[in-house]
Amino acid sequence: MQIEVDRSSREPIYRQLATGLQQRIRSGALPPQTRLPTVRQLAQQLGVTRLTVHSAYAELQAGGWVEATVGRGTFVAERIDELIAPPEAQLGREVSPAGMVSDILRIGQLPGLISLAKADPAHEFFPMRNWQRAIELALEAGGPQLMGYTTAQGEQSLRSVLAEVVRERGVSAGPDEIIVTNGVTNGMSLITDLLARAGDTVLLEQPTYLGMLNILPSRGVRAVGLPMDGEGLVIEALEAALRRERPAFLYTIPTFQNPAGVSMSPARRAALLDLAERHGLMIVEDDIYGRLGHAGASPPSLKAADRSGRVIYLSSFSKSLMPGLRIGYVVAAPELIGRLVYLRQAQDLCSPPLMQRALAIFIEQGWWQSHIKRMLPRYRERRDALLSAMERFFPAEVSWTRPQGGFSCWVTLPRGSSVSDLYMSAITRGVAFTPGEVFSPAPNPQPHLRLCFSAEPPERLADAVATLGGLLRERGGRHGLAEPALSDYVPVV
Amino acid sequence: MQIEVDRSSREPIYRQLATGLQQRIRSGALPPQTRLPTVRQLAQQLGVTRLTVHSAYAELQAGGWVEATVGRGTFVAERIDELIAPPEAQLGREVSPAGMVSDILRIGQLPGLISLAKADPAHEFFPMRNWQRAIELALEAGGPQLMGYTTAQGEQSLRSVLAEVVRERGVSAGPDEIIVTNGVTNGMSLITDLLARAGDTVLLEQPTYLGMLNILPSRGVRAVGLPMDGEGLVIEALEAALRRERPAFLYTIPTFQNPAGVSMSPARRAALLDLAERHGLMIVEDDIYGRLGHAGASPPSLKAADRSGRVIYLSSFSKSLMPGLRIGYVVAAPELIGRLVYLRQAQDLCSPPLMQRALAIFIEQGWWQSHIKRMLPRYRERRDALLSAMERFFPAEVSWTRPQGGFSCWVTLPRGSSVSDLYMSAITRGVAFTPGEVFSPAPNPQPHLRLCFSAEPPERLADAVATLGGLLRERGGRHGLAEPALSDYVPVV
Repeated sequence: MQIEVDRSSREPIYRQLATGLQQRIRSGALPPQTRLPTVRQLAQQLGVTRLTVHSAYAELQAGGWVEATVGRGTFVAERIDELIAPPEAQLGREVSPAGMVSDILRIGQLPGLISLAKADPAHEFFPMRNWQRAIELALEAGGPQLMGYTTAQGEQSLRSVLAEVVRERGVSAGPDEIIVTNGVTNGMSLITDLLARAGDTVLLEQPTYLGMLNILPSRGVRAVGLPMDGEGLVIEALEAALRRERPAFLYTIPTFQNPAGVSMSPARRAALLDLAERHGLMIVEDDIYGRLGHAGASPPSLKAADRSGRVIYLSSFSKSLMPGLRIGYVVAAPELIGRLVYLRQAQDLCSPPLMQRALAIFIEQGWWQSHIKRMLPRYRERRDALLSAMERFFPAEVSWTRPQGGFSCWVTLPRGSSVSDLYMSAITRGVAFTPGEVFSPAPNPQPHLRLCFSAEPPERLADAVATLGGLLRERGGRHGLAEPALSDYVPVV
Repeated sequence: MQIEVDRSSREPIYRQLATGLQQRIRSGALPPQTRLPTVRQLAQQLGVTRLTVHSAYAELQAGGWVEATVGRGTFVAERIDELIAPPEAQLGREVSPAGMVSDILRIGQLPGLISLAKADPAHEFFPMRNWQRAIELALEAGGPQLMGYTTAQGEQSLRSVLAEVVRERGVSAGPDEIIVTNGVTNGMSLITDLLARAGDTVLLEQPTYLGMLNILPSRGVRAVGLPMDGEGLVIEALEAALRRERPAFLYTIPTFQNPAGVSMSPARRAALLDLAERHGLMIVEDDIYGRLGHAGASPPSLKAADRSGRVIYLSSFSKSLMPGLRIGYVVAAPELIGRLVYLRQAQDLCSPPLMQRALAIFIEQGWWQSHIKRMLPRYRERRDALLSAMERFFPAEVSWTRPQGGFSCWVTLPRGSSVSDLYMSAITRGVAFTPGEVFSPAPNPQPHLRLCFSAEPPERLADAVATLGGLLRERGGRHGLAEPALSDYVPVV
């Protein structure tokens, strides 16, 4: 097996090994169904530990490059052709919210790509040791009960901790006013099932979280977008919409909005709550980025100022800790929670109690809070790297938001630019982003990109922006990118 | 703190301690918000290890008896009144599928009750050490990637293993024909969303799995029950229904049916597939108990004989391993899987990759197979204990099935017996079962109980049956239980 490892490289040896094997599979040197050396053999040959080889094989297996069967060995995957096809053959088949969610989840599994597509926390800083410790502590204390069923509402121990957690966002709720969900997307899906019927309308910010635009049409619910500016949702537009529509609810991300990267101003928040009161509007507040103010400070949640129970509050640990937990939660009146519990029972009974209990312990130990504290300067650094690279590499006609928190930046291209063409070209050059159109229910005259800065180190962000800048300039000539913005140009954010 | 522990008892000391504390909380000796001694203090006072006290506190916390805050200590819960109300105040509020699922999940959290209500694997035999080892191996090999997002279809490594797993049930499928779900209930929920619209009809066995009767009305889908006998689903009844209805699909549990405890005969299986072919009927096969034949042998799955892709196959690890994994799967044609993936994205994006990868490793190590092998004689022993206790303690007018696999036994009472009255009385005496009516979409003239024998040791099963037998005899006098069965009595199983 001709594979070289460079011990002086910053790249871990197991990754070098995995990449080397991928190259040999790609080139055909290792055809489908070839048996690979055993872990022991390869470790001996390369002079590395068995764990290193094991990790490389596990990564290849996870990516579908090889298949392993106990007692028989590890083999190059039979259907490897699908994998070694160029990435654009697998991606971009459908520029729709559903197609894009699918792409974004796949992109995470493709090695080598610089991804600005996914609003993902930085994996390399995941507190793996403390997480493993929390699992051990949970198993020690909880034993087999943690591998049984639990209630659909979620583990009491976690809900008690969550009551403390939301208090820091100004939300006062007991454990009975909380339901644990499989991430925030699941909370939105359950709330949609609870409050909206097929044919109903839901109002939301334009642009908004992709997942919501994926959920609504799957229920036959119509999404109506409302404009935003630098202070967030434009209240006059909401008021006009409320005169026309009787929406099931308004979905909003008031704090560090994804993808726009702006927060709703205090005046707008007050006006929104006032309007909701007058029109009997239910508000679903997604506070997933609420803790992730780059300077540490965050505006208080909408729910904190909700006097009449019109706000249903949602959040999760996917951005502030690790998305693989698949743990989010909804805070609402006990009566609504009771109905969400029934829907949850008719969806999947309950979330894994081990993950819930381990997370409760993780938070009780103070490890979540210290992780956030450690991450905020990192995210600020990455945001700054993205902003200054855009300043340097992007054509003058391109503009963008300057987020004070969260993971994403919203980039506005001049009219007439083809974002899907840029998307496919960028992927071919090893850079992924998300085309702006998938974040809006209605076509937008102005083309946009969402660039997420959270998951890549500053150097790679700069490389990616340089690549995108080059592509934008190339296209500038062809597609009139250099044209001045038209006079009817309305900034979305 | 006046608590006595009995070191000669078979009950673990931490449980004695938890029970002792519960009694003191219940009696008011420890009122709400009382601070409990620290773990160290109580361990010293009682001469037990700190882990023991920690486990007792964790159990109390999990049950909502106490609340703990790092740095402040452990306190008797503020809202303890809700907990110390008699259990019937919390249970049996609603004898409907949704109410009963809720009860069944709660019953698992109530200490002290002998529960024959839940088709739960035996917790005391959960392979906790190997499971923890599998988590460690997964984390070693997969690292932070395991705490990120994964694809909605599920981890490639697990789907490769599942392809092997289903092969042993006669199902030939590649990893791309499999989607990972949050248990089998989630598979059913997604398939219902895929194949049925509000107003549609779904055919199912009567009685059938409670979860399905909970899912269908939540989607506005009508459930129509078909009779069963000792050979399973009555094919003539299906044929008649197919002449009347155009069902979205038929849901069936052909092997070791829950709750009936019978399997569909080979002749019926062949007739069913033939009928499906002729009528263009889709069949959803739930094979969750397929591996759990008490004598080791199981009929092959329906899907194994499906030549025309009319069978969608579902299963999970909740019965054969541990329900807290929340991992099930659906096997279907790639085109259907692709549509389920989109629905999964609009539900909760993906299942926790750590749980998926650890389960893949657990199975690859052969630990799942050896666990099943170890459990089968246990379940047989428990079934036998239940059957002989019923023989001994139940009035002669009561009859029941003799399951060859699975976890549940279906008990038929004479007409006129009030099952909900029995349910409440049994709970007061510390015994839980499930009233039969919740397993059927239409009222049944004959009253039934489901007794699950899987989760309690033989002695406790006998105690529970003795209690139920006593209650049945008491009621016999009042409600005419001793009356001979009427001539129009049709056995449901």
